[in-house]
Amino acid sequence: MAFPLRDIAERFGLTLQGDGDGLIAGVCSLQPGMPGRLSFLADPKQAGFLEQTYAGAVVLAPTMAERCPVPALIADNPQLAYARVAALFLPPHPPPGVHPSAFVDPDASVDPGATVGPHVVVEAGASVAAGTLLAAGCVLETDSHVGPDCRIGANAVLGREVVIGARVRVGPGAIIGGRGFGLARDHDGWVEIPQLGGVRLEDDVEVGAGCTIDRGTIGDTLLERGVKLDDQVHIAHNCRIGALTVIAGCTGIAGSTEVGARCMIGGGVGIGDHLRIVDDVVLTGATQVPSDITEPGVYSSTLKAMPAGDWRRRLALIRKLDRLEQRLRALEKPDNDKGDRA
Amino acid sequence: MAFPLRDIAERFGLTLQGDGDGLIAGVCSLQPGMPGRLSFLADPKQAGFLEQTYAGAVVLAPTMAERCPVPALIADNPQLAYARVAALFLPPHPPPGVHPSAFVDPDASVDPGATVGPHVVVEAGASVAAGTLLAAGCVLETDSHVGPDCRIGANAVLGREVVIGARVRVGPGAIIGGRGFGLARDHDGWVEIPQLGGVRLEDDVEVGAGCTIDRGTIGDTLLERGVKLDDQVHIAHNCRIGALTVIAGCTGIAGSTEVGARCMIGGGVGIGDHLRIVDDVVLTGATQVPSDITEPGVYSSTLKAMPAGDWRRRLALIRKLDRLEQRLRALEKPDNDKGDRA
Amino acid sequence: MAFPLRDIAERFGLTLQGDGDGLIAGVCSLQPGMPGRLSFLADPKQAGFLEQTYAGAVVLAPTMAERCPVPALIADNPQLAYARVAALFLPPHPPPGVHPSAFVDPDASVDPGATVGPHVVVEAGASVAAGTLLAAGCVLETDSHVGPDCRIGANAVLGREVVIGARVRVGPGAIIGGRGFGLARDHDGWVEIPQLGGVRLEDDVEVGAGCTIDRGTIGDTLLERGVKLDDQVHIAHNCRIGALTVIAGCTGIAGSTEVGARCMIGGGVGIGDHLRIVDDVVLTGATQVPSDITEPGVYSSTLKAMPAGDWRRRLALIRKLDRLEQRLRALEKPDNDKGDRA
Repeated sequence: MAFPLRDIAERFGLTLQGDGDGLIAGVCSLQPGMPGRLSFLADPKQAGFLEQTYAGAVVLAPTMAERCPVPALIADNPQLAYARVAALFLPPHPPPGVHPSAFVDPDASVDPGATVGPHVVVEAGASVAAGTLLAAGCVLETDSHVGPDCRIGANAVLGREVVIGARVRVGPGAIIGGRGFGLARDHDGWVEIPQLGGVRLEDDVEVGAGCTIDRGTIGDTLLERGVKLDDQVHIAHNCRIGALTVIAGCTGIAGSTEVGARCMIGGGVGIGDHLRIVDDVVLTGATQVPSDITEPGVYSSTLKAMPAGDWRRRLALIRKLDRLEQRLRALEKPDNDKGDRA
Repeated sequence: MAFPLRDIAERFGLTLQGDGDGLIAGVCSLQPGMPGRLSFLADPKQAGFLEQTYAGAVVLAPTMAERCPVPALIADNPQLAYARVAALFLPPHPPPGVHPSAFVDPDASVDPGATVGPHVVVEAGASVAAGTLLAAGCVLETDSHVGPDCRIGANAVLGREVVIGARVRVGPGAIIGGRGFGLARDHDGWVEIPQLGGVRLEDDVEVGAGCTIDRGTIGDTLLERGVKLDDQVHIAHNCRIGALTVIAGCTGIAGSTEVGARCMIGGGVGIGDHLRIVDDVVLTGATQVPSDITEPGVYSSTLKAMPAGDWRRRLALIRKLDRLEQRLRALEKPDNDKGDRA
Repeated sequence: MAFPLRDIAERFGLTLQGDGDGLIAGVCSLQPGMPGRLSFLADPKQAGFLEQTYAGAVVLAPTMAERCPVPALIADNPQLAYARVAALFLPPHPPPGVHPSAFVDPDASVDPGATVGPHVVVEAGASVAAGTLLAAGCVLETDSHVGPDCRIGANAVLGREVVIGARVRVGPGAIIGGRGFGLARDHDGWVEIPQLGGVRLEDDVEVGAGCTIDRGTIGDTLLERGVKLDDQVHIAHNCRIGALTVIAGCTGIAGSTEVGARCMIGGGVGIGDHLRIVDDVVLTGATQVPSDITEPGVYSSTLKAMPAGDWRRRLALIRKLDRLEQRLRALEKPDNDKGDRA
């Protein structure tokens, strides 16, 4: 798999600078770079590496073109252009067809243009559209539906009545459609509240490895168009995540919470239940959100590690902060105090 | 699947108000509601929705009956009554039998009343009781035992010598009986401390999707009767979780810790190792517990997101809280100070 | 499986004290202990249990030997010696061979000395060395390579081009080689940045149940020799974890971060992206690391639960800590203030 740089420029509508005959056979980092491979420069802090790179070619912004010692592809958004070009080097999709070790229920519907890997299970009533790949060992339970050009990772599980749009990627080991955690108290224990809704993932959603997305109690848990989840994210029952929102790894969102569109949520964040987060909210890593966020903006409650002895003293003071405030208040009333003393 | 409201009332011992002839074919939310479907009113804050609901019938408390414009089922605990009625609408259990694609070791014992799904693995010495469903792709390793009327989710794993009681639900992708994280330091690395214990889940336990519960080092890790875990909870080796305790998603409990009965543990909580938490403790979401809790009650260390610039200033002050305290102390000794200056 | 204590002493080079004829058939805790079983005493706080133990024998330090009422194996590092001896009682490895229900691609290479369990998938180009066990349902995708004497847990997934050294243990349900979370912004959504690197686990690495380790963007994500991960740890793309570093459960490390050698990282820790943590750093549980750590030592930002009402008041004060500091500053300038007032 190697492409002349000129062909790449044409195919992706990029401006070629320098020799277009060289073959590009893969990608490389800018430093040190690798002959015959393509790199990119998006972060101005890396501009210093450009002049010594051994890359076969570099995707970069017009302002950087002059400094590039090797052939270049010029793009207004070099990272985006690189993302598109680099996809040339992804391993090819396996050919369509159902692996003989897979089990597809006779009452399921798998398009002949779909690829069903070894030991996959497709239960009754499920459907799989053309261009979709079901990787080894994944399970589509009863009445789940997967749209076209999706990729369901190895050993992932789509529960009953999970409905997935087009071009959705579900990571290996992700579990979509587990029971929502609804319980009613009985005199001698807990009774499960039946979770009768489903999960809907709209077009272009990505769900990372090991994520869990629970089915709704009555209606559906919903991830709107273009939502992207990193690994080990948990979305509880009845949540609705707005279009294009991105959520980094290990974040958990509790039940019935609605997150707006175009939010950027860091890793390890915790968001409470029954909350509303408006559009265009950014949360830094490990931030805790126990109440609504009603205005767009960047929010945080991220702590910062310090030497443990120092932290222990700060923590002791945090724990008696009310006493500190009382001492401050006492000082603020010197006249009264003097009066008292007099 | 539709039931006259009158039959539902009789079957669950609820008081019928209004017309009992209407058929109920499923559930709906109170707002807007849906004809022919059942809703419930448990949260008084939702009482306003009652008067405009389109639901076919509503389960509610006696005090609300008068305000209900549609037929009602009256119950002292409407949420509990709803939970029981709604279970009518869960999809039926698949019929008993072993799917031809499953592998059941000749030295395993599967009750003829159990259902073994596609690509399930039941290894030698394992046993499965009547009424239990093993969903597609789950694995029961050597000498694991599953009691009656359980449901083991798709692609879940029960390791060697995991023992599960009656009516236990294990979510898809949950891993019970992984190696406990015990290591001994050698001069040139780490040596695994063999984890020779098992895991025991007593009756009516629920384990959510993607949870991990590690086997004990010598004895068993134990979840007592009626413990309920949400998704992605981690219970380390040698822990013991008391009866009826409920743990929300993404919480982790470190090794050899004992949690009491009837605790309510929020999501994203972290509990350290070798601790004791007494009965009837409530922990709010994301709370950190590095030491014993010896009295029942509600505990917290939950932070709260604020605009990032504001938070950055607070964090800087937290980090010099000892300096603040010194300044406060200096102010509290004005006479000394004046003496010093004199 | 039972061994005379004398044989155990000889085999592991330990000093025998007392009768060596007794058979040891397993392990037990020190309190109460169990006849015919072996315990150990490593923590001096447990010395009180020694004198009443019912254990058949105890592994302990020379200084404790005198107080031992039962036969003893004397070792400078009793925990390490116990770890080695206890491995005698682990269930035997299943015999080599490929289970008939497994699917091994004709273009894969499985050593005849490897054990391939039921419903395992080994795709084209993958290789498995001698002495390695692939537990039920695990998946080795195209061109993944597993070295000798490894154990890959049930339903674990090794993605394309994951390369694993010798004596590596991958827990059940762990996902190695998921797509790294790289995205480029397009005018109308997100475009995946292809993740073309792999994951390398060097010799003696352990990965716990349910962990996720993402493939690199261009180069490989790397866990060096002897790194040990507990359950549900997340290692993002392009990370490099130094030799012998140990990471407890539920910790997440964001993309392109480098952690040094011999670090001890607690559970529930969050480490940001593109950071450098030097060798020999210890992080207490739930610590948050949003910036580089450049000196070895113990670091913390762990909070501590307190009664919820008390905490609420502390949190309110944290949130107005800048106001507190202003009030303090105002008090520190009494002369100016008096001047202003005059």
